[in-house]
Amino acid sequence: MSWLPSLITETPEQGFDVAIMLSRMGVKKTQPDDATRSRLRQDYANNADSLTEASHVIAVNFQTVAAANNYWR
Amino acid sequence: MSWLPSLITETPEQGFDVAIMLSRMGVKKTQPDDATRSRLRQDYANNADSLTEASHVIAVNFQTVAAANNYWR
Amino acid sequence: MSWLPSLITETPEQGFDVAIMLSRMGVKKTQPDDATRSRLRQDYANNADSLTEASHVIAVNFQTVAAANNYWR
Amino acid sequence: MSWLPSLITETPEQGFDVAIMLSRMGVKKTQPDDATRSRLRQDYANNADSLTEASHVIAVNFQTVAAANNYWR
Amino acid sequence: MSWLPSLITETPEQGFDVAIMLSRMGVKKTQPDDATRSRLRQDYANNADSLTEASHVIAVNFQTVAAANNYWR
Amino acid sequence: MSWLPSLITETPEQGFDVAIMLSRMGVKKTQPDDATRSRLRQDYANNADSLTEASHVIAVNFQTVAAANNYWR
Repeated sequence: MSWLPSLITETPEQGFDVAIMLSRMGVKKTQPDDATRSRLRQDYANNADSLTEASHVIAVNFQTVAAANNYWR
Repeated sequence: MSWLPSLITETPEQGFDVAIMLSRMGVKKTQPDDATRSRLRQDYANNADSLTEASHVIAVNFQTVAAANNYWR
Repeated sequence: MSWLPSLITETPEQGFDVAIMLSRMGVKKTQPDDATRSRLRQDYANNADSLTEASHVIAVNFQTVAAANNYWR
Repeated sequence: MSWLPSLITETPEQGFDVAIMLSRMGVKKTQPDDATRSRLRQDYANNADSLTEASHVIAVNFQTVAAANNYWR
Repeated sequence: MSWLPSLITETPEQGFDVAIMLSRMGVKKTQPDDATRSRLRQDYANNADSLTEASHVIAVNFQTVAAANNYWR
Repeated sequence: MSWLPSLITETPEQGFDVAIMLSRMGVKKTQPDDATRSRLRQDYANNADSLTEASHVIAVNFQTVAAANNYWR
């Protein structure tokens, strides 16, 4: 089964979760090693600017998911 | 109840508030610990570049919300 | 009265001013203290990269305002 | 006369020039002092990352101008 | 054969792979030397902020690919 | 002859090349001196984060070019 079968979700909140998944997958595809990513987590999860940038990436992906769902209008 | 029942708002100002909420939720979903986020607040809230970047993320999310509302035309 | 009654403006130049206002409001909503923001101003207003990033945020917001106005065609 | 009477241009190249003007105006509106901006120029004009970011802002504004002109199709 | 014959893919997951390829090609076209890129990999692959930014670029390219595919609706 | 006669290309690959040209032109218009740009090249071409950001700018411009070409559908 695909990790991304569809961009379509029932609700905006589910769409936000897809945006988070896309953001994490962008990291995972670049650094596939689970142990390394876990080790790095303490770096960004305790740094204000890193968290803002993480939110930035989610925002970009949420644009895509929201458009895909015609903004759940 | 969902934290994001809809992207539709009555006014542009309410839409901007949704954009702020989305930006903060992007941080919260990455760092769920309230105490850590509170501690980090003094870092970004007193740094000019951090505040500009926070505004950047809000701007990206506001694009999404504004499009969802057909720009409140 | 709302600080953002509408995204619609008569001219592109007025739309750019709305984009600037949105960018500043993104900062103000994150750091509401006027004295802190004033103190930080000397940081970003005298730093080339900070000014470029400020222009970046304005550009993102101007995309939104320009689309709202159908690009004043 | 407005510094931005219209986003419409005859050619893509002229549109790129408008994007540059918008990017510079975003800086100027944030730091209106000409002497300060001139002094800062040596900082970003001799730094690779600063130039890349300047190009980034132009790219965002060019998206707006290109859409306004229906991509000069 | 072109390295980018089309933006059209059968599935969202394949579209994400195209977005990754576009992101890497943007690096490769800027630094064509394979040995240099390999050497630099340890820098960004072990740095949290670098990985977030890599995910950011993928997100921007995924917007393009998703729009091209009409979001696989 | 204009350096940008059109955003329209026959193929996606050619469109990516236009995106690269736009990204470089954004730098060149900001720093017109060829010798300075050549000197700075060793800075960004050997830095992982700089290359990622270069790819980011290309991605933004590729969005524009791809939209202009209706995604070569």
